[in-house]
Amino acid sequence: MASKMVLPLFFVFSVLASFSHALVQDFCVADLKSPDTPAGFPCKKVSLVTEKDFVYSGLGVAGNTSNLIKAAVTPAFTAQFPGVNGLGISLARLDLAVGGVIPFHTHPAASEVLLVVEGTICAGFVSSANTVYFKTLNKGDIMVFPQGLLHFQINSGKGGALGFVSFSSANPGLQILDFALFGNELPTDIVAKTTFLDPATIKKLKGVLGGSG
Amino acid sequence: MASKMVLPLFFVFSVLASFSHALVQDFCVADLKSPDTPAGFPCKKVSLVTEKDFVYSGLGVAGNTSNLIKAAVTPAFTAQFPGVNGLGISLARLDLAVGGVIPFHTHPAASEVLLVVEGTICAGFVSSANTVYFKTLNKGDIMVFPQGLLHFQINSGKGGALGFVSFSSANPGLQILDFALFGNELPTDIVAKTTFLDPATIKKLKGVLGGSG
Amino acid sequence: MASKMVLPLFFVFSVLASFSHALVQDFCVADLKSPDTPAGFPCKKVSLVTEKDFVYSGLGVAGNTSNLIKAAVTPAFTAQFPGVNGLGISLARLDLAVGGVIPFHTHPAASEVLLVVEGTICAGFVSSANTVYFKTLNKGDIMVFPQGLLHFQINSGKGGALGFVSFSSANPGLQILDFALFGNELPTDIVAKTTFLDPATIKKLKGVLGGSG
Amino acid sequence: MASKMVLPLFFVFSVLASFSHALVQDFCVADLKSPDTPAGFPCKKVSLVTEKDFVYSGLGVAGNTSNLIKAAVTPAFTAQFPGVNGLGISLARLDLAVGGVIPFHTHPAASEVLLVVEGTICAGFVSSANTVYFKTLNKGDIMVFPQGLLHFQINSGKGGALGFVSFSSANPGLQILDFALFGNELPTDIVAKTTFLDPATIKKLKGVLGGSG
Amino acid sequence: MASKMVLPLFFVFSVLASFSHALVQDFCVADLKSPDTPAGFPCKKVSLVTEKDFVYSGLGVAGNTSNLIKAAVTPAFTAQFPGVNGLGISLARLDLAVGGVIPFHTHPAASEVLLVVEGTICAGFVSSANTVYFKTLNKGDIMVFPQGLLHFQINSGKGGALGFVSFSSANPGLQILDFALFGNELPTDIVAKTTFLDPATIKKLKGVLGGSG
Amino acid sequence: MASKMVLPLFFVFSVLASFSHALVQDFCVADLKSPDTPAGFPCKKVSLVTEKDFVYSGLGVAGNTSNLIKAAVTPAFTAQFPGVNGLGISLARLDLAVGGVIPFHTHPAASEVLLVVEGTICAGFVSSANTVYFKTLNKGDIMVFPQGLLHFQINSGKGGALGFVSFSSANPGLQILDFALFGNELPTDIVAKTTFLDPATIKKLKGVLGGSG
Repeated sequence: MASKMVLPLFFVFSVLASFSHALVQDFCVADLKSPDTPAGFPCKKVSLVTEKDFVYSGLGVAGNTSNLIKAAVTPAFTAQFPGVNGLGISLARLDLAVGGVIPFHTHPAASEVLLVVEGTICAGFVSSANTVYFKTLNKGDIMVFPQGLLHFQINSGKGGALGFVSFSSANPGLQILDFALFGNELPTDIVAKTTFLDPATIKKLKGVLGGSG
Repeated sequence: MASKMVLPLFFVFSVLASFSHALVQDFCVADLKSPDTPAGFPCKKVSLVTEKDFVYSGLGVAGNTSNLIKAAVTPAFTAQFPGVNGLGISLARLDLAVGGVIPFHTHPAASEVLLVVEGTICAGFVSSANTVYFKTLNKGDIMVFPQGLLHFQINSGKGGALGFVSFSSANPGLQILDFALFGNELPTDIVAKTTFLDPATIKKLKGVLGGSG
Repeated sequence: MASKMVLPLFFVFSVLASFSHALVQDFCVADLKSPDTPAGFPCKKVSLVTEKDFVYSGLGVAGNTSNLIKAAVTPAFTAQFPGVNGLGISLARLDLAVGGVIPFHTHPAASEVLLVVEGTICAGFVSSANTVYFKTLNKGDIMVFPQGLLHFQINSGKGGALGFVSFSSANPGLQILDFALFGNELPTDIVAKTTFLDPATIKKLKGVLGGSG
Repeated sequence: MASKMVLPLFFVFSVLASFSHALVQDFCVADLKSPDTPAGFPCKKVSLVTEKDFVYSGLGVAGNTSNLIKAAVTPAFTAQFPGVNGLGISLARLDLAVGGVIPFHTHPAASEVLLVVEGTICAGFVSSANTVYFKTLNKGDIMVFPQGLLHFQINSGKGGALGFVSFSSANPGLQILDFALFGNELPTDIVAKTTFLDPATIKKLKGVLGGSG
Repeated sequence: MASKMVLPLFFVFSVLASFSHALVQDFCVADLKSPDTPAGFPCKKVSLVTEKDFVYSGLGVAGNTSNLIKAAVTPAFTAQFPGVNGLGISLARLDLAVGGVIPFHTHPAASEVLLVVEGTICAGFVSSANTVYFKTLNKGDIMVFPQGLLHFQINSGKGGALGFVSFSSANPGLQILDFALFGNELPTDIVAKTTFLDPATIKKLKGVLGGSG
Repeated sequence: MASKMVLPLFFVFSVLASFSHALVQDFCVADLKSPDTPAGFPCKKVSLVTEKDFVYSGLGVAGNTSNLIKAAVTPAFTAQFPGVNGLGISLARLDLAVGGVIPFHTHPAASEVLLVVEGTICAGFVSSANTVYFKTLNKGDIMVFPQGLLHFQINSGKGGALGFVSFSSANPGLQILDFALFGNELPTDIVAKTTFLDPATIKKLKGVLGGSG
């Protein structure tokens, strides 16, 4: 009798499930070749999606910290990891060599949680009330940085440090303060008026950071 | 004097209303031929939209319950009813013959309200705390099933039952537990490890539900 | 050996599930005695929640249509059905006697889908572009009314009509045009200036609808 | 030594900033030629965006108030000002000559704040509970009109009045009551049934406002 | 016969409207004495709400620009104007004397539109890609600043300037760069490491801005 | 002259910043003693908030895997880590001993990204279309699991495995399939009807998992 059931049951579930196939928007793997929208990229066709779209291996490789800040950020945002498109989440890897620093920056569109996997990191943020909240984090500690606020991370240990940061957006954005102020063509006198720094300091940093004006 | 008013008043309102025409996004009838986005399908041109886009008659027809579960689900989601695209709401029809059952399932993207129109339905859901909330519903009763939780509906009366379910999304998704576990190629040993069911049971259900592996 | 497994397995799942108990916000049954918030009412304690909080029987009773509009609306919003609080969905029942009318109204905070369960209803809405979309609906038909737009329902059949409406909010609001214009103390001259109706018409309707001024 | 730093520091920040370039969705200037989506228009390519996309001068010009309502509304919504697409904000200018009136209307998709820049405006709205909140506003006063509710503005001073309104949406919509009721082809008998106005009044206003039926 | 209609019609609408009264959450005037929530403050009782809750006159008064930046910001956020609570919109007034500057700052939780009412303002913002978008704005011009990005406003004319800014949040937040970096107790060496400024510059600005460490 | 500037500049910024203090809702550290709301817990007073509220050390300790599934989940959700309240993000730690398994489960309110920090994990999810996406992940790999879908993680390596999961909600919920089906008092005949499992299997698992009925 069980064998008699097989076909009808299969049929039933096919009926029940048939509209699922047509409707699936459980996910929306980004078609990066199409123009973006305010809610994210249009979706790749479901029939072309494979398990590879949901996995990313780029964070397994240490970033190059042979640079002045002795640090590197490796993102897994929509552009690198199209599977997170529309899902409100993304990750990045932080490598900090001895003395490494991630300078003051903001993410305009996301809150962040830092997880320390190796080493010791001094991290902090400044609130709208200009209160500073900062603390030295050890392996296994996590710290949250609320959306849009200036924050930093410094390797405060004797060896290298490794962290992973999670964001509450597939596309959190990143505005590095020094680069925003000095790494473009905004005229020195405007920077001076709007930062209270003297023109000489500004011009020096513009030179270092590739800005002009 | 009234006739003198006609032109100016008409003119005024034309001015007032002119920008409305260009801006209308009161609704966004889905253009199902375009690729989906995380917020729904692109909109059909307003000039092509008619009252028919906002009406759907497919729920007026009973689903075929001549199957093992003696039940049928007829959806009016974006794919069937493009007028709800972007509006955060959709409906479906439930037909349950005597003994009919809608097995355990979830809607990943929506809460649901069931309205019993005919008959008696025993319905319930399980919370994250694993508490079961279930109750026998009579004609006119409504029950809410919070987003993403496992729930079921059983015809517990002596005749047929008819219900309509509303969702808090134009595209609520549907994951039927048995089909998700047994209706695909997920290897039996993985199913066994992740469900605590024995391989024989799994293989039997895979056979019934069209799965393999 | 199976008996040996019982305790450890139970223990495991207890561990896995223990944090669920503390965290459960699968739902948030409204505590209507607390002050509302922009996101809905504070939640009733989970330990006090029962299956009754998720079921409402008030829509099973026909509304009283012995009135001038020969119609009645029976809501199941947060205030009547606290189980929908925070879940983005609610329902209402429409009873329309022969000749019954639900006059022009809006829901400021929700889109609506009407399901006709008995009879024939002529329903329509007006877009921001002032286009009217209206259609006669028969049993089983559904029609969507996008958020915030003026819409109406008229019993256009020879017998009574019964409909159920679903909303994309637990608290959709309801602004009935005539009542908004004429059922309060807004001075007649202001109503006249802002509606182009003549004062006599306004005063008459104010009298009928309980307004003054 | 400072000169030695230049290249590496520039290199560092280039690395840090390189993924920003690819990911930027700080903004999404509307490509108005593409079809709209429920979340707004697709984005213009970042490489084509200039500062002009974020500035609009159309509100600097007074609207033409030589009309019956002696008032004009000049919008800066997505269609006029594509830079606000996806950013949840837009503006409009209100010009009211002596005796000018913005008749009862709603914005289905946004709350509004009115700022009086010149003159005196009597403004008000009606809640779902049919309570009227209205007040005379002077230069510098602001008033908020919650989403989707009927509201009006009247020049109640002896000279002209100028206001600017802000909306909580890039595309707030606008439904002017009289135009919605009388400026289209909705049959007079339906308007009569759904507004309690008599057919003669309706036909007269239809004539004035360009409606028929 | 009309007189016979009066009572029933009034009765009808009372029935229709009765549930409105209980359900009204068209608005949620902030009860600032209660603790805030992630969605805004709990609501003042509707019975205590008056038209005064929806109007604010504080922006009618010029801010005091007798200070070093020759500028003043006067907010109308939830704390000053409780009527906007939960409505996703707020305003502020900018007064800029000759030479006045609103230094670089961000709003972590809102996009902003600036309207120039008097004078000439040079305004700009920096994107995540470090591109600067800036432009000189004249009376009547508006400019949008996307959420979370660094931006500034400078009086670039020969007389005073007056602007009003609108935000896409009732509580946009405000982080003034100089104050965030130098107006608190963040140790100088941490500021130096995270900004590339030299300690002497930092200590000088800390002194000026009231910071220590 | 610089010393003359000190007071006015400090004064200026105090003025600019003064309203920030009153308005700060950059964050909303949960006051767990107050009743929850649909948007999260009410906020702890800002004056009582310290840097400790934004840091959590509980994920630095390995979970106890001496149990049948040889695995442990350690959450850092709002209940454990009140600093994430309202910020749309949270984390958890996964410890999997050799042979360890996180059985099929869903998070009703969040998407998840898994980061493998040690070992090898076979992870997968099932879509609404019943397609299985699963893959073996090595150290440094990340995988995304879209909201509300059934998913699992299995230690497929020869040693222990360690992972961290991030969620797009401060309170993602957790519904473990076996516990939901068998760890409560839902009657065996209902479970049988709604899962197609035979009563003997159900009763056995109920015994193991602490359920009854």
